[in-house]
Amino acid sequence: MPDPTLDPADWDALRRNAHDLLDRSLDHLQSARDGRVWTPLPDAMKAQLQADLPATGIAHDVLADRLAALLPYGVGNTHPRFFGWVHGAGNAGGVMPEIVAAAMNANLGGRDHGAIYVEKQVLDWCRTMMGFPADCGGLIVSGTSMATIIALKTARDRRIGFTSRAKGPGQARLVGYASAQAHSCVARAFDLLGLGSDALRPVPCLADFTMDLCALRRMIKQDAAAGLTPFAVIGTAGSVNVGAIDDLAGIADIAAVKDLWFHVDGAFGATAILSDRVRPRLKGMERADSLAFDFHKWLHVNYDAGCVLIRDRDAHLRAFSERPDYLAASTRGLAAGNPWPVDFGPELSRGFRALKIWAHLLEHGTEKLGATMTRNVEQAGYLADRIDQSPGLELMAPATLNIVCFRYAPQGVADLDTLNEAIVVELQESGVAAPSTTRLHGAIAIRVNLTNHRTTRPDLDLLLAETLRIGAVLLPT
Amino acid sequence: MPDPTLDPADWDALRRNAHDLLDRSLDHLQSARDGRVWTPLPDAMKAQLQADLPATGIAHDVLADRLAALLPYGVGNTHPRFFGWVHGAGNAGGVMPEIVAAAMNANLGGRDHGAIYVEKQVLDWCRTMMGFPADCGGLIVSGTSMATIIALKTARDRRIGFTSRAKGPGQARLVGYASAQAHSCVARAFDLLGLGSDALRPVPCLADFTMDLCALRRMIKQDAAAGLTPFAVIGTAGSVNVGAIDDLAGIADIAAVKDLWFHVDGAFGATAILSDRVRPRLKGMERADSLAFDFHKWLHVNYDAGCVLIRDRDAHLRAFSERPDYLAASTRGLAAGNPWPVDFGPELSRGFRALKIWAHLLEHGTEKLGATMTRNVEQAGYLADRIDQSPGLELMAPATLNIVCFRYAPQGVADLDTLNEAIVVELQESGVAAPSTTRLHGAIAIRVNLTNHRTTRPDLDLLLAETLRIGAVLLPT
Repeated sequence: MPDPTLDPADWDALRRNAHDLLDRSLDHLQSARDGRVWTPLPDAMKAQLQADLPATGIAHDVLADRLAALLPYGVGNTHPRFFGWVHGAGNAGGVMPEIVAAAMNANLGGRDHGAIYVEKQVLDWCRTMMGFPADCGGLIVSGTSMATIIALKTARDRRIGFTSRAKGPGQARLVGYASAQAHSCVARAFDLLGLGSDALRPVPCLADFTMDLCALRRMIKQDAAAGLTPFAVIGTAGSVNVGAIDDLAGIADIAAVKDLWFHVDGAFGATAILSDRVRPRLKGMERADSLAFDFHKWLHVNYDAGCVLIRDRDAHLRAFSERPDYLAASTRGLAAGNPWPVDFGPELSRGFRALKIWAHLLEHGTEKLGATMTRNVEQAGYLADRIDQSPGLELMAPATLNIVCFRYAPQGVADLDTLNEAIVVELQESGVAAPSTTRLHGAIAIRVNLTNHRTTRPDLDLLLAETLRIGAVLLPT
Repeated sequence: MPDPTLDPADWDALRRNAHDLLDRSLDHLQSARDGRVWTPLPDAMKAQLQADLPATGIAHDVLADRLAALLPYGVGNTHPRFFGWVHGAGNAGGVMPEIVAAAMNANLGGRDHGAIYVEKQVLDWCRTMMGFPADCGGLIVSGTSMATIIALKTARDRRIGFTSRAKGPGQARLVGYASAQAHSCVARAFDLLGLGSDALRPVPCLADFTMDLCALRRMIKQDAAAGLTPFAVIGTAGSVNVGAIDDLAGIADIAAVKDLWFHVDGAFGATAILSDRVRPRLKGMERADSLAFDFHKWLHVNYDAGCVLIRDRDAHLRAFSERPDYLAASTRGLAAGNPWPVDFGPELSRGFRALKIWAHLLEHGTEKLGATMTRNVEQAGYLADRIDQSPGLELMAPATLNIVCFRYAPQGVADLDTLNEAIVVELQESGVAAPSTTRLHGAIAIRVNLTNHRTTRPDLDLLLAETLRIGAVLLPT
């Protein structure tokens, strides 16, 4: 066998096929509006994806075909009538940084190289965007789940002392608070960090699905009286069920008085600080001790990309830094540039996801990004009005941000849950639109999430028309 | 303002510039062997990366130029004379899956779409490759740090009972064991999971840097007698300092008798199971309860890409699964396919990193991948022999896998540490080669890691010649 290298024997073939694949990929994106929203993977392709581990390789033209064949079978989130969960709609220009990132193959755990400076630039921009101090801590991460883990670990360790990293939180009986509508990633972080998910107290919500701050005060008092140690309160900037934004300034006030770490889960809502219409409602977010948010949701950077900002950079560093011999930083050479990103989070090898965020902000600028979010908020208002005006449809929650929850509720149907679940499945399977469902006050709602820069009002009109049509067809006879 | 969408106003311009960028990126990779290993980012570019948050966007040709300008300023790991830390050298063909992944913008948290089936295929291949059962749990992750967190959380929760997720490990006084040469990600996982890093006991090593199993037995006994709860032992398949492989079968025997969770950190070493030469030394790895390893190291998939396998799929699921209303799985429609990847790890949004792993295994096949690793092991032996034969050079540890630690040690120099650190900085800054350093038995070593499919023997000859030349120049006078 000749010297084995993974470089192609035929560079021209790789080049030709990569260009071809680029064209097919851009064709796919250019026609994002056409055709079905969601198309299930055909059975033949499912079967093909149960192959044996390959012992020998394939040519680049075959590989290109295998890859291109997958293009039609996404979840549908690049289509203007994808309304499920909270997915970003993606960015065609995002193919450019990914090509360069693949060619650089950078590991952003640390060391002194170009990619590190790009991530620093992105973090500086995040601080500016979110009104955080220029010297705060921060890290680019895969998303808000990781960001929350990093923020709450810092809060945990600061409360019990950073030397506790050796001993664990053991007997400290830490408790924290988040609204009953908070995202599950918060309780999951409590579980992961060894605090137990019960240590996260669900604070009841007001009628607008925001945290009841009187209840919060009461619960803190009761827990402290019971010998527990309240250490953190988590505000939600954009709840996933209905898009509610907690009274962040009110929570900040309580956190200051009670000496609690104030964390904001701004997974999709925080970035709406770029929208003139939403910005005033995020007042108080800039006072948070830590903030978690995603670029891959309402900002449409391709998956995955999120960020954590931590006001107290020293605390952030003390919660994660620790250098074994083979990672010793230096003042000169390749190992220079202390501290490294590994000192701010649990991951030691880190891909170059900062590049696509940097390119995205450069490509579009904050004004256009803000305008796309404002338009989604206006669309949510339009959709809610149309639902309100439609006999047979019922709005299930106020549509104050970008999420509209409603149901088909004709007179005389006993089991509306089953009917509405069936409507959503039919909408998805027909390929015409892809909302998801949720449960509000115990009842199933059709949930329309508008984090989609391609959606237009006719798309929403079609959604309602089809909901009514399918609903009538599925009515129990 | 017209309807704002992030789609390009001029698709042809995007297309033209993306093709241009693809050519420049492939040019960069095709000349990976030429020129300097590491080139620091020029000051002018550092200054340019301290710009204000952009309010308005830029044209695609300008963006392409900004991106292409970064290409020369990687850490150097695509160059055949990069020997630092444990970096993969990357894969030119990896640009293809990244183009498709960018166009699909898939979120692999869950739901029923094509990307999910690709990840399942990759996990099946991982099970086969590592000799794990076909029905074991697994997840594609960013790397071994995350994989270790997931594995040890499962171990933690299984020991204290999965209902403990609500209460936390509190009083359980869990302790685990890893060799004193184990990777820092293990202690970091203990810290993150609330067990405290002291709960990881460093087991002394034998002269070959592998875990002393007699010491392990003794420590378990002592801890149990002291009322602690031994719950896990971590074997290392390829230590980062010298490439030592613990006696995995021996650890598996002890774990079975003592009822401990047996985790293997195989960050780079586990994938050498594809090398005929290394495979026999990994005997026992297939008996692990969990295994963490990377694709971006010795397999050269572009950063970042790793995997965790967990023998007991039910335990894996019970450590992470939990479904809020808006993530309810269904048997039909887009929400079908229970369980989802979110049920096996802490991240709820997940990019399509499975695609580049899938494409890489298809492109090359396991035989060629194994051969590149065998060649690196042979190169390590060659380098160690050459060092042994060179007056003035001293081998610091046995080179049994792919890592060679040595130093320049001429007669009569008191401070060899300072001299060897200076040699490494000079090697890096001269652009001729990029080893890193570590500390062995208290002394600084020049550390040459061979996870590089582009390295040839003349590259190693040049490294030694330059080490001797620079060493002589830097000798204290």
